[in-house]
Amino acid sequence: MQVNAYAAPAAGEPLVPTTVERREVGANDVLIDIEFAGICHSDIHTVNGDWGPQAFPLVPGHEIVGIVREVGSDVSTHAVGDRVGVGCMVNSCGRCENCINGDEQYCVEGNVATYGATDRDGTITQGGYSTHVVVDADFVLSVPEGLDPAAATPLLCAGITTYAPLRKWGVGPGSKVAVVGLGGLGHMAVKIAHALGAHVTVLSQSLKKQEDGLRLGADEYYATSDETTFEDLAGRFDLIINTVSAKIAIDSYLGLLAVDGTMVNVGAPPEPLEVNVFSLIGGRRSFAGSMIGGIALTQEMLDFCAEHNIGSEIEVIEAAKVNEAYERVLASDVRYRFVIDAKTLA
Amino acid sequence: MQVNAYAAPAAGEPLVPTTVERREVGANDVLIDIEFAGICHSDIHTVNGDWGPQAFPLVPGHEIVGIVREVGSDVSTHAVGDRVGVGCMVNSCGRCENCINGDEQYCVEGNVATYGATDRDGTITQGGYSTHVVVDADFVLSVPEGLDPAAATPLLCAGITTYAPLRKWGVGPGSKVAVVGLGGLGHMAVKIAHALGAHVTVLSQSLKKQEDGLRLGADEYYATSDETTFEDLAGRFDLIINTVSAKIAIDSYLGLLAVDGTMVNVGAPPEPLEVNVFSLIGGRRSFAGSMIGGIALTQEMLDFCAEHNIGSEIEVIEAAKVNEAYERVLASDVRYRFVIDAKTLA
Repeated sequence: MQVNAYAAPAAGEPLVPTTVERREVGANDVLIDIEFAGICHSDIHTVNGDWGPQAFPLVPGHEIVGIVREVGSDVSTHAVGDRVGVGCMVNSCGRCENCINGDEQYCVEGNVATYGATDRDGTITQGGYSTHVVVDADFVLSVPEGLDPAAATPLLCAGITTYAPLRKWGVGPGSKVAVVGLGGLGHMAVKIAHALGAHVTVLSQSLKKQEDGLRLGADEYYATSDETTFEDLAGRFDLIINTVSAKIAIDSYLGLLAVDGTMVNVGAPPEPLEVNVFSLIGGRRSFAGSMIGGIALTQEMLDFCAEHNIGSEIEVIEAAKVNEAYERVLASDVRYRFVIDAKTLA
Repeated sequence: MQVNAYAAPAAGEPLVPTTVERREVGANDVLIDIEFAGICHSDIHTVNGDWGPQAFPLVPGHEIVGIVREVGSDVSTHAVGDRVGVGCMVNSCGRCENCINGDEQYCVEGNVATYGATDRDGTITQGGYSTHVVVDADFVLSVPEGLDPAAATPLLCAGITTYAPLRKWGVGPGSKVAVVGLGGLGHMAVKIAHALGAHVTVLSQSLKKQEDGLRLGADEYYATSDETTFEDLAGRFDLIINTVSAKIAIDSYLGLLAVDGTMVNVGAPPEPLEVNVFSLIGGRRSFAGSMIGGIALTQEMLDFCAEHNIGSEIEVIEAAKVNEAYERVLASDVRYRFVIDAKTLA
């Protein structure tokens, strides 16, 4: 089955319209009519080759929402007509300790990424900037009614990436959470932490987005360019979610943690970060990292977002605007996520 | 009250016999006839001025065991003739959130260190290389019967420093724990982790102390100078206790952690450590620090050690050998802790 898509023909080149092959629907597969595909900063890193060589042409997109068109004979979890989602991975070994524990993203054989990865049948996966996709039913999520499908799309990456550490580190009423950076990930972290009952503080380079931050659920908003921020907030937070992928002064942020507090990176700067161990020892603090989340937790996150009426703040674009959207993401000129309307690919 | 002691007259100079003043026994004080004082590596750092300027002359020693000679009118927790211990701190504000939570070591006003700190009455504290000490009863521990007093002495610092993270990170039967470095701290970590029911692996530069490590309770012993160690043990451990204060290749060790694993530093190298965030994100791992432990937990540790017949491996010395002992500590020529017999100070 040949389907329409937008693909990068080579590293760093603009995306162009093309077609890609989708496999026949196997016994455990779901064929999805894609409605929307989100644009994640990592799509741009990947097609630019920042994260190593890729197989081209490459169709990015790992935030996918659509409608089930067909299911394989063994599929009982999804039915034709259901609204479903696909996130950052489409398969894993299913047998290792991490898969069994519901942490498929940490599969010891490596999870199969939604695009640019070698699938378990040997083909290279192609992502969601497309009209259709075929995915193993175990990696297809149910999108609850009540969620706007376009606004729900970024939940499949930005939502789970921030929900997972908030849950892992037990955020709830009374928790004091800081979110570093108010972008695609950060704005989801604010919404979700707020809905979990936490007191939420945004730490952003400037106060430019302060009004947005408070509207999205933050209780406080501080500029990190102001040195007094680090004095005023010393020892304050139980959890800091760092969504910034650039190299920041980790020690300054560790000083904002209360005893037993954790700073968790969901972005990964390419260069190592310098950590002064005294910053950790002086408050039994932790510096941690977290990568997306397992399939069961992703479903829990979608259900939670439906219950709390949480979607991403989005700008819906036609597929032909994807290269322009990439430029704007790189310029931080989006509030807060671009979503491609897949009808414009038809 | 003037009492005999060994003090450093100035930074980096050999310790010499002297006398120091101990305050009168206040209503909440305990006067202790010191039996033994342990030599901790941090004593050496402090008197050498490695950790900043100090008030001299300075009597080190924050591992103290002795017998109660006198108690103040308000003291009900200790009685004359009891065997007691004093660790790394002798006071704190008692009112801040951390003190109230039993984390006096993280007192927001700063805990009062057992030596070289300004006490709450304005005097400079002097440590345990001495015949007597007067300490607030709230910072005096009970040394259970059955513990050998000399071997129990290092528990007051090396014991609690390793017990605290083992408890904080929930080590018990089934836990896989690695201990980096088999010295004063490391050998206590091995004994305590083993007694908690963990599977214990020592990671040491060489196999020189392998026989000791296995005798002390380790199940496995690996040399970190052998690169295959880091391949063989990848993804293995729930908790790594790093007792080494030198700069080590943190990323290599983070790769030994299972998903959700934590590497906790109890030593603090003076220079920052470089952490590759991918090492953390790739397994929801944490890099943490921990400093001694609160008073209630220290008592719990002493009771646990009594129950499990755990003491430190020690070499008892007369006070006049303290400078020689310092040389040997710096040369890693001690298995595993020097303890000064305070009778030799009389």
